[in-house]
Amino acid sequence: MSENFHKIVIVGVGLIGGSLALALRQHGVVSKLVGIETNSTSAQWALDNGLVDEIIGQVPEDANLVALCVPSDLVSGWVVKLAKHQAAVFDVGSVKGPIVSAVASQIDLPENFVPCHPISGSEKSGPEAARADLFSQCMVVLTPTENTSPQALKSVRDLWQCLDAQTSQLSPQDHDQALAITSHVPHLLAFAFMQQVKDQHFLLTGGGFRDFTRIAGANPELWWRIFQLNKEEVLTALDIFSVDLQTLAESIRGADSQSGIAQIRAAANKRKASESE
Amino acid sequence: MSENFHKIVIVGVGLIGGSLALALRQHGVVSKLVGIETNSTSAQWALDNGLVDEIIGQVPEDANLVALCVPSDLVSGWVVKLAKHQAAVFDVGSVKGPIVSAVASQIDLPENFVPCHPISGSEKSGPEAARADLFSQCMVVLTPTENTSPQALKSVRDLWQCLDAQTSQLSPQDHDQALAITSHVPHLLAFAFMQQVKDQHFLLTGGGFRDFTRIAGANPELWWRIFQLNKEEVLTALDIFSVDLQTLAESIRGADSQSGIAQIRAAANKRKASESE
Repeated sequence: MSENFHKIVIVGVGLIGGSLALALRQHGVVSKLVGIETNSTSAQWALDNGLVDEIIGQVPEDANLVALCVPSDLVSGWVVKLAKHQAAVFDVGSVKGPIVSAVASQIDLPENFVPCHPISGSEKSGPEAARADLFSQCMVVLTPTENTSPQALKSVRDLWQCLDAQTSQLSPQDHDQALAITSHVPHLLAFAFMQQVKDQHFLLTGGGFRDFTRIAGANPELWWRIFQLNKEEVLTALDIFSVDLQTLAESIRGADSQSGIAQIRAAANKRKASESE
Repeated sequence: MSENFHKIVIVGVGLIGGSLALALRQHGVVSKLVGIETNSTSAQWALDNGLVDEIIGQVPEDANLVALCVPSDLVSGWVVKLAKHQAAVFDVGSVKGPIVSAVASQIDLPENFVPCHPISGSEKSGPEAARADLFSQCMVVLTPTENTSPQALKSVRDLWQCLDAQTSQLSPQDHDQALAITSHVPHLLAFAFMQQVKDQHFLLTGGGFRDFTRIAGANPELWWRIFQLNKEEVLTALDIFSVDLQTLAESIRGADSQSGIAQIRAAANKRKASESE
């Protein structure tokens, strides 16, 4: 893909914004990269390390694309402010429905707004943790609203594909329902599981424990916000999990090997199928 | 460690037995390595690939060490048969109490028996999956009985340390209680979680899902056996998990951010502490 973007603005130069900057540089698809960052330490770091060409205060008129890499609760304010701008505007929040609703409660959904969710991330945060390959082979879900223009959608999809990301398209609601299952509930289970783990257990762990609990090391405030934003979908998926867990526990308790092994085998087969996607 | 073992017998040359053979070769601590393997395909593979020097039918008189790398339900038969042998005898089963009980129900616990559990493993099985480094940096828990002789214990501990494994010592019961938490319940949760995952979710996953569910790809029959062998401890740990999960879910439902974030932060802090061990 040889699409070239004249001027891209990254609002929020943390882990995601910083990685986006590094990836855009590496793939040589942008002429000018400017950042908006209220944290002066992050701003200085991003400048000193060449992530952005300059740090500015507001989105310039001649920008082609604006990446909102700020916390979810700050996205709608920027989308409203940029509703009449020529640039396509996208965010990177983990929960899409509430962001779209927050915008829709203030104005008609703008044509230039393309909600996005790159399914990547890390337990780390801040521009120091940024990596040029964070989006490489990563799935980016685009969740256009009924008002999103085909041009804005194409522009944002092209950007992600330029960075070697895969893209798919879902409604904001379908996205939130799916991600409750594939990401939010796993985090919830890992957080709850760690409660009974004690110091003396640490030595008695292997690779299974390490991998299973890796996501429990994630940022507490960030994950609390995600659980609150996607509360209904998360609690619904959790109810289904609780029934499935109860079923497996009853098979174990009752030594019902036919049923128990069938459940475990279904899990193992699905896990293997997920790897071959 | 320069301990040299004259002749070691490996009963069961699958993933664990085969990896033990490769590791012993690599560290040059054994003169003669013989295997006992009833599966003729595995036996031929182990011979053809030099894992063992020969495949024999029974443990020879001059063996120094016997590694029982067979399924847990076959261990006690071998331990009873070898009770008067000069060699130290160890197994590698994931659950220790039931193995010790199975032996004790037949004879006085032998002096030469050292129950062991190397906390390693893989989703794979069979000698083809064997790796010389499977035990390197791995924790091996030794769970001597009240009758285990200091000589047998030392001999087996030396063996594992020769292979760059770490060792620790617990009673069989304390081992089973700890492993229910650090290994068995995580597997149970991953198996139960996979039930509601559908094909269309596979594309919408990232590294978090991949790591969290890796253990769900494990061998169904093996894990069913582990759940049955350690049923009481697993169900007890699962009950504690269910209460912890309920507490976190209620915080989310009630938007109790103080309590919710405190639980998540406790999890994240423990997860980080576990990495620095």
